[in-house]
Amino acid sequence: MNAAEASPAAVTAPASGDVGLVVPRDFVTTEPFTFESGQTLPGFTLRYETYGRLNAAGDNAVLICHALSGDHHCAGRHTAADRKPGWWDNLIGPGKAVDTDKFFVLCANVPGGCQGSSGPSSPDPATGRPHGIAFPFVTIRDMVRAQKRWLDSLGVNKLFALLGGSMGGMQALQFGIEYPGFCARLVLMAMTARESAQAIAFNEVGRQAIMQDPAWNGGNYQKDGGPRVGLAIARMMAHITYVSDASMDRKFGRKKKAGAAGDAYTFDGQFEVESYLKHQGESFINRFDANSYLYITRAIDHFDLAAAYGSLEAAFAHVEARSLVLGFTSDWLFPPSQSRAIALALLRAGKRASYAELDTDLGHDSFLLESPQLYDLVRGFLV
Amino acid sequence: MNAAEASPAAVTAPASGDVGLVVPRDFVTTEPFTFESGQTLPGFTLRYETYGRLNAAGDNAVLICHALSGDHHCAGRHTAADRKPGWWDNLIGPGKAVDTDKFFVLCANVPGGCQGSSGPSSPDPATGRPHGIAFPFVTIRDMVRAQKRWLDSLGVNKLFALLGGSMGGMQALQFGIEYPGFCARLVLMAMTARESAQAIAFNEVGRQAIMQDPAWNGGNYQKDGGPRVGLAIARMMAHITYVSDASMDRKFGRKKKAGAAGDAYTFDGQFEVESYLKHQGESFINRFDANSYLYITRAIDHFDLAAAYGSLEAAFAHVEARSLVLGFTSDWLFPPSQSRAIALALLRAGKRASYAELDTDLGHDSFLLESPQLYDLVRGFLV
Repeated sequence: MNAAEASPAAVTAPASGDVGLVVPRDFVTTEPFTFESGQTLPGFTLRYETYGRLNAAGDNAVLICHALSGDHHCAGRHTAADRKPGWWDNLIGPGKAVDTDKFFVLCANVPGGCQGSSGPSSPDPATGRPHGIAFPFVTIRDMVRAQKRWLDSLGVNKLFALLGGSMGGMQALQFGIEYPGFCARLVLMAMTARESAQAIAFNEVGRQAIMQDPAWNGGNYQKDGGPRVGLAIARMMAHITYVSDASMDRKFGRKKKAGAAGDAYTFDGQFEVESYLKHQGESFINRFDANSYLYITRAIDHFDLAAAYGSLEAAFAHVEARSLVLGFTSDWLFPPSQSRAIALALLRAGKRASYAELDTDLGHDSFLLESPQLYDLVRGFLV
Repeated sequence: MNAAEASPAAVTAPASGDVGLVVPRDFVTTEPFTFESGQTLPGFTLRYETYGRLNAAGDNAVLICHALSGDHHCAGRHTAADRKPGWWDNLIGPGKAVDTDKFFVLCANVPGGCQGSSGPSSPDPATGRPHGIAFPFVTIRDMVRAQKRWLDSLGVNKLFALLGGSMGGMQALQFGIEYPGFCARLVLMAMTARESAQAIAFNEVGRQAIMQDPAWNGGNYQKDGGPRVGLAIARMMAHITYVSDASMDRKFGRKKKAGAAGDAYTFDGQFEVESYLKHQGESFINRFDANSYLYITRAIDHFDLAAAYGSLEAAFAHVEARSLVLGFTSDWLFPPSQSRAIALALLRAGKRASYAELDTDLGHDSFLLESPQLYDLVRGFLV
């Protein structure tokens, strides 16, 4: 596939700094794929989007890796009526920090996901029914290897840069380790080289909420069915870990819902923060698959570069990319100390790395939010 | 009731610094009780324990108030075979910081609780079936007023001191506000004068896990039945908030369970922290009632002294007790800043108050744990 063919996604000219309407595409491979677990698939699909155009030299590709609940749709809109653009639309677009006038930007939904890529909810060709938890166990390295095959198919032979936050940062760093010459720059945000016990614990509570919901049924359920209650509980809890005490207090404090005064002595949600969380849970179950939640949280829990390579320095021994590591002061899920440790290990391994800590009280999700300081750092690094 | 009758609980002589075998007793009143909500009960029961003896002057009573998942059994053992003593046995006993050789120590299970006091799981005399959520809504102030009636019945006309951590501290402070001349000293640990949005949010996720469990059934279920799955999820999550990232990391880190290596690619708990949390959930459902969990978390959420009295200073205007306020550096559920704010408001209101911040990485539950520094502070204050 040549460069011109590789970027058909932006079908309308961008207006006012956004990439306009985009059409997701599917990469379908029928070559068998062996996961780290040893399990294999006869092939797989990755749904992806691209914005901008690969230049003639083929040296302007920028890969975006998404986090747990993200997907391939990181910029633009699918229809003019879409209420919201892609999840990183504030960062990606013409003239933005990841400038689609300069870069050919790509993003794929990870294997194990539920937005079009092969995962537990996609049909097993052998039976026509969803794979369920018979789908192979997925690791961060599997996500990276699958995406590499997709990038190869597009003729993307090198990446100008690779950006990711949270689990996206794990993939980006794993890319830098696995394919040293492939990627020139890594931007690693709000991430960790291995979760703490507390982060594993939160993920486990979410998994238990899902797996102990009777509707989970051992992972066998129909689309739009399944453990919706358990998944909503998991999401409500996880959402608390994505923000911060200070930001929740500023946004909601102890404000009561309108009309809640009259029924102050009930168990119904009376505080605005309760309704907000409930809404987070309810909207999540309409867009996310519970089995994918199990797979992806497990992939995150298992990510442990020091254990996999002996030490962080050993893991980074062959990295060639320059790295910009960004921590966020109020991130208590993957605290900035964990990002700092990555930058320090890169430096100790003799690599080019910078670390910046952004002062924000918006918590882990800060990397997704409006931040001129973040934009400047990214823009400055992508030159 | 005279002093001698008031302390039959310690039935054997204490050995090696503990209060020995104790027998819980029931305070039963048939006088109607009106809750803050306006709902009434024709009477109620509080289960309680006492240790030590009320002296002839009647001025050595020390009340202990328990936290969310605690109860009246705070010291000693019920049988010689008990694996564990009461929940604050490290603090209370002959020669301990709360010295039962000197003090007559009392503790009652709160109304709304499930360890013998009237609550949603106790039978409604009218029907013989559990009250369920027809039980009146309970506030911290209701807990305090009910305990005052019990103390009156025992002939306890004043308290030398009142100690509580977390929700126990809320009760203690409310006691000091509600009955100014009644209590001479307050020890308030790991508490808050009002929860932040984040703490409400965690409680709400727990309540949703319970109420959305089909076995909750609108609060109608038989003992040993009910929303055991939801309650376990609520407890697992809450437990994370009682400890700290650092303490979990030190205790478990990323250690795998013995034998887990062989099945690394499954969703079963592989990390020790996962088994530990699961155990926390499972043991909790065998001792706690899900409806009580709803009632008590709601009481905590609604506690807001500044809102109830106009300001903290106004709330404290009539307090006569001296207060020792203790915060714990790693408590992220009720951060030490919230304890400090209470001490400062007491001082601003012209009251005698001290604040100490204990340096610990054990999180919110620090007030329950072995700490010579804590013991010294309490001992020094109770003179």
